[in-house]
Amino acid sequence: MTDTWLTSLITDTPQQGYELAITLSRRGVKYTQPDMDTLKKLRPEYANSAEGLTAASHVIAVNFQTVAAANNYWRG
Amino acid sequence: MTDTWLTSLITDTPQQGYELAITLSRRGVKYTQPDMDTLKKLRPEYANSAEGLTAASHVIAVNFQTVAAANNYWRG
Amino acid sequence: MTDTWLTSLITDTPQQGYELAITLSRRGVKYTQPDMDTLKKLRPEYANSAEGLTAASHVIAVNFQTVAAANNYWRG
Amino acid sequence: MTDTWLTSLITDTPQQGYELAITLSRRGVKYTQPDMDTLKKLRPEYANSAEGLTAASHVIAVNFQTVAAANNYWRG
Amino acid sequence: MTDTWLTSLITDTPQQGYELAITLSRRGVKYTQPDMDTLKKLRPEYANSAEGLTAASHVIAVNFQTVAAANNYWRG
Amino acid sequence: MTDTWLTSLITDTPQQGYELAITLSRRGVKYTQPDMDTLKKLRPEYANSAEGLTAASHVIAVNFQTVAAANNYWRG
Repeated sequence: MTDTWLTSLITDTPQQGYELAITLSRRGVKYTQPDMDTLKKLRPEYANSAEGLTAASHVIAVNFQTVAAANNYWRG
Repeated sequence: MTDTWLTSLITDTPQQGYELAITLSRRGVKYTQPDMDTLKKLRPEYANSAEGLTAASHVIAVNFQTVAAANNYWRG
Repeated sequence: MTDTWLTSLITDTPQQGYELAITLSRRGVKYTQPDMDTLKKLRPEYANSAEGLTAASHVIAVNFQTVAAANNYWRG
Repeated sequence: MTDTWLTSLITDTPQQGYELAITLSRRGVKYTQPDMDTLKKLRPEYANSAEGLTAASHVIAVNFQTVAAANNYWRG
Repeated sequence: MTDTWLTSLITDTPQQGYELAITLSRRGVKYTQPDMDTLKKLRPEYANSAEGLTAASHVIAVNFQTVAAANNYWRG
Repeated sequence: MTDTWLTSLITDTPQQGYELAITLSRRGVKYTQPDMDTLKKLRPEYANSAEGLTAASHVIAVNFQTVAAANNYWRG
């Protein structure tokens, strides 16, 4: 992957930080499986499975820890 | 998702912080599967499974780490 | 859940902190599945399974990280 | 459980800290399933399974993070 | 493994840090299974499985926490 | 286990730190299953399984967080 997709972990709001955590989580998948057709085929496998959705939320939570720390928890 | 649902990680009490951690955990699921009908159908899959409930509590625990750190652990 | 069950993360001893971590872990389950009868039925599913018990201990470990940090590790 | 088993997270050496992390991990199992006979029966289930052993090592790693932080990583 | 592959956790940008986290995650696999032929055979097992891809992204997220902290979150 | 295997978390380089994280991860397995013959028999179970290898890399990642923090991320 040669495109630039991550230049900063700083966001204006916690919600934008949470959405950045989602981006980070999805990039981890894309780096591992870059073929978009395969990814589309696999989508129902986790998006329609309680276990898959919980696992996805778990990865987001780990990345959100990183983004939140980077932003000093938006304590302002 | 364009609605605003997360404007701050600061809460008055640890219990409110824990409940915010639950909200964060659920949002991770909703961002991944936005269709509410699908989510309702999947609910029994984890809410009636010991493994699913433990996994849900795990994600909440990770998010609670973030919220608790943001609030300096409500040390007062 | 409207009852108050968590007013502080501070405990006198590490052991009380560990027990608070257990409470936090169980609450994560109860918030997700509030029906006590269902919870009782599911208990043998994880309490008699090596995998379920290890998963339970994992969630406790994550919550204990939070409680221990809150208490400055009871360094005294 | 009313016995006292955890009075401090401070240890003299990193190895003792690692062994304390093992104790913490096992206690998480015992609090969830206090019946020793059941625990003994379940032992082969994880001690003879690669997945079970990796999961056990994972929980120890999480608890070792806590113990190591408590001891300022024995940097002394 | 006697080659030198990790001399610093410091990177210029968060994206390079994320890519270092991927390297760390892959090295964990290679240290455990050094045989490249076996690794190639196993690749479809996780790269074509939603569960496997989420698990891969999870490990990357944990390593990214480490790299991000090392770089003070590129706040500079 | 009475032998001394861990006297310090400090290493000269990040790579040595990563290798110490591998040692920590393996010790977690050995403390749980000390019988070397059983461990050898189980090796193919995870070393030839994508899921097992990812899980092994995950545990290493958690231990590497600890070692990296202990070394102040080798920031120099």
